[in-house]
Amino acid sequence: MIELTPIGTVRSTRTEVADDNWDRFEARIELSHDIDPEALVGLEAFSHAEIIFFFDRIAESAVDWGSRYPRGNPKWPKVGVFAQRGKSRPNRLGATIVRILRCQGRALEVAGLDAIDGTPVLDIKPVLREFLPREPVRQPEWATELMARYWS
Amino acid sequence: MIELTPIGTVRSTRTEVADDNWDRFEARIELSHDIDPEALVGLEAFSHAEIIFFFDRIAESAVDWGSRYPRGNPKWPKVGVFAQRGKSRPNRLGATIVRILRCQGRALEVAGLDAIDGTPVLDIKPVLREFLPREPVRQPEWATELMARYWS
Repeated sequence: MIELTPIGTVRSTRTEVADDNWDRFEARIELSHDIDPEALVGLEAFSHAEIIFFFDRIAESAVDWGSRYPRGNPKWPKVGVFAQRGKSRPNRLGATIVRILRCQGRALEVAGLDAIDGTPVLDIKPVLREFLPREPVRQPEWATELMARYWS
Repeated sequence: MIELTPIGTVRSTRTEVADDNWDRFEARIELSHDIDPEALVGLEAFSHAEIIFFFDRIAESAVDWGSRYPRGNPKWPKVGVFAQRGKSRPNRLGATIVRILRCQGRALEVAGLDAIDGTPVLDIKPVLREFLPREPVRQPEWATELMARYWS
């Protein structure tokens, strides 16, 4: 068993769980009061950060452990929970690359964060080119279809 | 407080903590015995996966909370722990995009995993093009220098 403590919280104009259209909302991360704001120094020199967060609105009993239809849609293939990025997953971790807008004291304003207001944040990492895929990315057709309205 | 349970373990030819040259080692992830191997079905249709793991060799007392010189090197600027990807960080989470080589039963063979043998794995997510940066990536010079020998 591994125990983690949130280092911050998402503040977003989106307050209800939803699947799509994340670009329509504004979000920032507010560091917890016991976290030294020095921890954010230098992050603005990067264009992007990866946010690791906890899907706290998903009950433990709602987690899928085997395979399922993505978004419950039988027109797509039934695939394993580790072949999907959906939120009802073991350990309920989310990980999303966001664009850094600005850093002000204990707050980090970002664009493209698919986490609703109140979501606990576990880590913030800068995106380095060297950590992005070094080969062409291949993905199945269903994944591309699922993402069609995810951001816009 | 958030409690997580590893879903698998890294098996790697690298057994000691080190900074660089990760491409010289081979790694696979073995699912824990209580995890349904169905969870990996369909992952091979993706070229890359993101592995979220726990830096279990870092003592809680060794975690940096404010700012520090990356790798303790004073030729680089002193920056916040959230502006670095080093392992002595709050919550001790690692997140790395790897190339998927093959999936066999409860084992996932990968290339480019910077975690040593025995590291607890918390999540496996497929890499979707739509979750990669949608704008050009910018990073400070020190980060590029630090990564010079990270992989090769």
